[in-house]
Amino acid sequence: MAEKLAGSCALLSVSDKQGIEQLAQAFVSKGIKLLSTGGTAEALRKAGLPVTDVSEHTGAAEMMAGRVKTLHPTVHGGILGRRGIDDEVMVARGIAPIDYVVVNLYPFAATVAREGVSFEDAIENIDIGGPAMVRSAAKNHASVAIVTDPADYSRIIESLDASTEQQGALRFDLAVKAFEHTAAYDGMIADYFGRRTGEASHAEPADFPRTLNTQFVLNETLRYGENPHQRAAFYRSADAGPGTIAAAHLLQGKAMSYNNVMDADAALACVRQFTEAACVIVKHANPCGVAVGANQLEAYDLAYRTDPTSAFGGIIAFNRPLSEQVVKEIIARQFVEVIVAPGVEPAALALLEGKPNVRVLDCESLSLGGTAESSWLYRPVAGGLLVQDDDVLNVELDSLKVVSKRQPSEAELTDLLFTWRVAKFVKSNAIVYGRNSSTVGVGAGQMSRVYSARIAGIKAADEGLQVAGAVMASDAFFPFRDGIDNAAEAGIVAVIQPGGSRNDAEVIAAADEHNMAMVFTGVRHFRH
Amino acid sequence: MAEKLAGSCALLSVSDKQGIEQLAQAFVSKGIKLLSTGGTAEALRKAGLPVTDVSEHTGAAEMMAGRVKTLHPTVHGGILGRRGIDDEVMVARGIAPIDYVVVNLYPFAATVAREGVSFEDAIENIDIGGPAMVRSAAKNHASVAIVTDPADYSRIIESLDASTEQQGALRFDLAVKAFEHTAAYDGMIADYFGRRTGEASHAEPADFPRTLNTQFVLNETLRYGENPHQRAAFYRSADAGPGTIAAAHLLQGKAMSYNNVMDADAALACVRQFTEAACVIVKHANPCGVAVGANQLEAYDLAYRTDPTSAFGGIIAFNRPLSEQVVKEIIARQFVEVIVAPGVEPAALALLEGKPNVRVLDCESLSLGGTAESSWLYRPVAGGLLVQDDDVLNVELDSLKVVSKRQPSEAELTDLLFTWRVAKFVKSNAIVYGRNSSTVGVGAGQMSRVYSARIAGIKAADEGLQVAGAVMASDAFFPFRDGIDNAAEAGIVAVIQPGGSRNDAEVIAAADEHNMAMVFTGVRHFRH
Repeated sequence: MAEKLAGSCALLSVSDKQGIEQLAQAFVSKGIKLLSTGGTAEALRKAGLPVTDVSEHTGAAEMMAGRVKTLHPTVHGGILGRRGIDDEVMVARGIAPIDYVVVNLYPFAATVAREGVSFEDAIENIDIGGPAMVRSAAKNHASVAIVTDPADYSRIIESLDASTEQQGALRFDLAVKAFEHTAAYDGMIADYFGRRTGEASHAEPADFPRTLNTQFVLNETLRYGENPHQRAAFYRSADAGPGTIAAAHLLQGKAMSYNNVMDADAALACVRQFTEAACVIVKHANPCGVAVGANQLEAYDLAYRTDPTSAFGGIIAFNRPLSEQVVKEIIARQFVEVIVAPGVEPAALALLEGKPNVRVLDCESLSLGGTAESSWLYRPVAGGLLVQDDDVLNVELDSLKVVSKRQPSEAELTDLLFTWRVAKFVKSNAIVYGRNSSTVGVGAGQMSRVYSARIAGIKAADEGLQVAGAVMASDAFFPFRDGIDNAAEAGIVAVIQPGGSRNDAEVIAAADEHNMAMVFTGVRHFRH
Repeated sequence: MAEKLAGSCALLSVSDKQGIEQLAQAFVSKGIKLLSTGGTAEALRKAGLPVTDVSEHTGAAEMMAGRVKTLHPTVHGGILGRRGIDDEVMVARGIAPIDYVVVNLYPFAATVAREGVSFEDAIENIDIGGPAMVRSAAKNHASVAIVTDPADYSRIIESLDASTEQQGALRFDLAVKAFEHTAAYDGMIADYFGRRTGEASHAEPADFPRTLNTQFVLNETLRYGENPHQRAAFYRSADAGPGTIAAAHLLQGKAMSYNNVMDADAALACVRQFTEAACVIVKHANPCGVAVGANQLEAYDLAYRTDPTSAFGGIIAFNRPLSEQVVKEIIARQFVEVIVAPGVEPAALALLEGKPNVRVLDCESLSLGGTAESSWLYRPVAGGLLVQDDDVLNVELDSLKVVSKRQPSEAELTDLLFTWRVAKFVKSNAIVYGRNSSTVGVGAGQMSRVYSARIAGIKAADEGLQVAGAVMASDAFFPFRDGIDNAAEAGIVAVIQPGGSRNDAEVIAAADEHNMAMVFTGVRHFRH
């Protein structure tokens, strides 16, 4: 039989010293020997704790400015040794079991995020010894606990007095976290390196890395996807902030469905374009009513009137905290699936308790005006993924170009910009009729533009809304004059569109014939 | 001054022995010393090459069934030592520079893909020493070449006689590949572990891991995204196979745009539903014409006639190799952006040379009938990602339930199933009118179902297509009888829909009143 194994050790090596002293103290109180390096060892000694330097433990001095400290059989054998199987060799080689590994990795992400950081600095901040220990310990989670996050120190301290089963469950959970951490870490390095290959250079990286490495964190498994036979889940970015659907809180109601999340996201994205009090009602990923009002109630009222049929069972988003008055009006008028707003007044929430099926989402805050940070948008295709910038560009008044003989009036200009902002969120081909900062008809998702225009007109007529005097936005240029002629016939007085068709002259002539004002944005907003 | 560094070494440790002998021979011919372990050392010795075992090199025997072999300062110091800076310590400690690291990682992916593999087997196949060396070498790519893929051996052999600059460029390229490899490797482990947390168990993993780790490979950077102000790129899965848009070859024409890829993908997905010769024309992500014919020409002719206006500038997909005759007909009739098919007849391609702007995509093969392997579909939302199964479920004849008094005729049944398959690819709310296995009107993307039905009718009328006698598919149930009444008025004789509305009785009664046949699928196909 083998001699007895040496006493249990904990290896601590952290850049973030927060809480490390209490953790080390807890280890010491259980007779666990502390191994440490550099600054961590120093901090623990200062706190009066007994510490053995890893170099003393291994008998090999640290070298190469810290590049090689823990890459040693005494360390990795102590971590990887299978308790009960490898005891003999551990005893023979004087390898003490290391039952706890507590490390932070060099902060590669923070380093490369710094302005003007050099490639050499980035390279130097790639941790080698840390991930090796993290991975060793995670592999051997049957016996070893790996801690990469100070937030987990308290769980370790509590577990010292827990049952064997509880300790095992914690070690597995931490092992999962460890591999999640190293996967994200190397993913970041691969992205950083991968933007510097081919024609790109260290100093002038490309926008798109050679491989795209992403990690998302499970928010929740959903009941099903777009349809009941599809499994689905909702993931968030590690840095999802306030104002995003991923970070929003469900204050009441049933769990969000896949379609709820999708529609609430589209509604929020649209409503945050406006700095004035606004309301967006979404159905099947398209806005069916959008309005800006003197207050939230007016905005809701106008948005609702655009298309009460579609608003039934819709998702309603606001860019102001949800008020009691508006809730009262919504409940009186319509069936609603989800209401989302940056904050909910207590009285409004109290009122909604009577409607337990209504999902109420609080997105906390919402930066208004549409200058969101761009993130990458993914679109799956068979065997791959399309990636593009989010379409966050906002056209402002001073970049509009009037191309018609008649100048638009100030009121027309306001409505043109309003409908333009809505059109950006309507599936292409998109045509939006609007007046007084309210939609009048929304023509969505058609394979030819002229039908989108017809639908906008039909819907306005069906709801008894007056098109005469309204303006029209088109998300892309008119290929022919027919769209303008039809609009004029319906009573449209001004048009906003990108321009850029080879038939622009013909289209402008049509506008002039009808005494319409026409402005070009120079920007297209396809959205599919 | 330091004494002279020991001679250069190459460390080789591979599970895939293919080509390793030639590589080792090339190293030996340049005076580079071979270090190796286990099976690799044996193979090289058999080939008559001089090899030093790593354990002899480090003076530390391999232990713990191979868990600890190379995790040693002599190995990692030899890899990580900064040439010219750390020479002194390397000489002092007898550390020879390791300038080449050639390793394959334990095949974790292959292991967990095996039927019935145990959690313990999976754990044992997590490589620790390998990734540590891969990462060390990649970090120190200024001096060290890291080779993880036998396909790169020839590049290394060639580089032995190349310029310093060429060698440096190769080392950096291989370092990027190394981190891509470790990122993917740990991503796989994190996914495997992450499906076994919480309420899931080792034996019964969850569908969705706690973090979702993905890696895609750049196919090409695109000129721009959905709109010119959005940057974009096209990535593929490492395993993208024939029949996918990601693996398709562009035989002629300008580079594919973002919208081309998106539309061609939608068209291919739809056309592969059909085993008979079929054609799908897509515009703005929606099919605007779909038909099955006795041959490819008939299928194209019928698909085109559904909506010639929208077909202009469309994307056309076939499920048979593209024939000369069909190309002739397409060119004669319409402007086309992309043609995609599983193979292109040489004569067809020759004919297309006269139309250099037409993009011709060959997707090689296409498994027909719609039983595709499901993959995860990603949909970005602010701060996160929705993930769901691809909607690959296909409803077959024997699972239809006739709910009307009148039984559908055989011809009606054929058309009902045809329109149902098309409806699955039309954006919701989707209504498809069809007859004789050809679309007659497509109502797409509306916020209320009744408008989708109206659009289908309007489009059919505008193209002079006869609706009387046609059938109708609806991707979700009818909430009210109005959709049925309107359809009957237009001449629709049979309807296919999921059923499941609380007003089903009313809806069925409406069908019976109009002597319509109505079948329920029990399956919904929302697609947004």
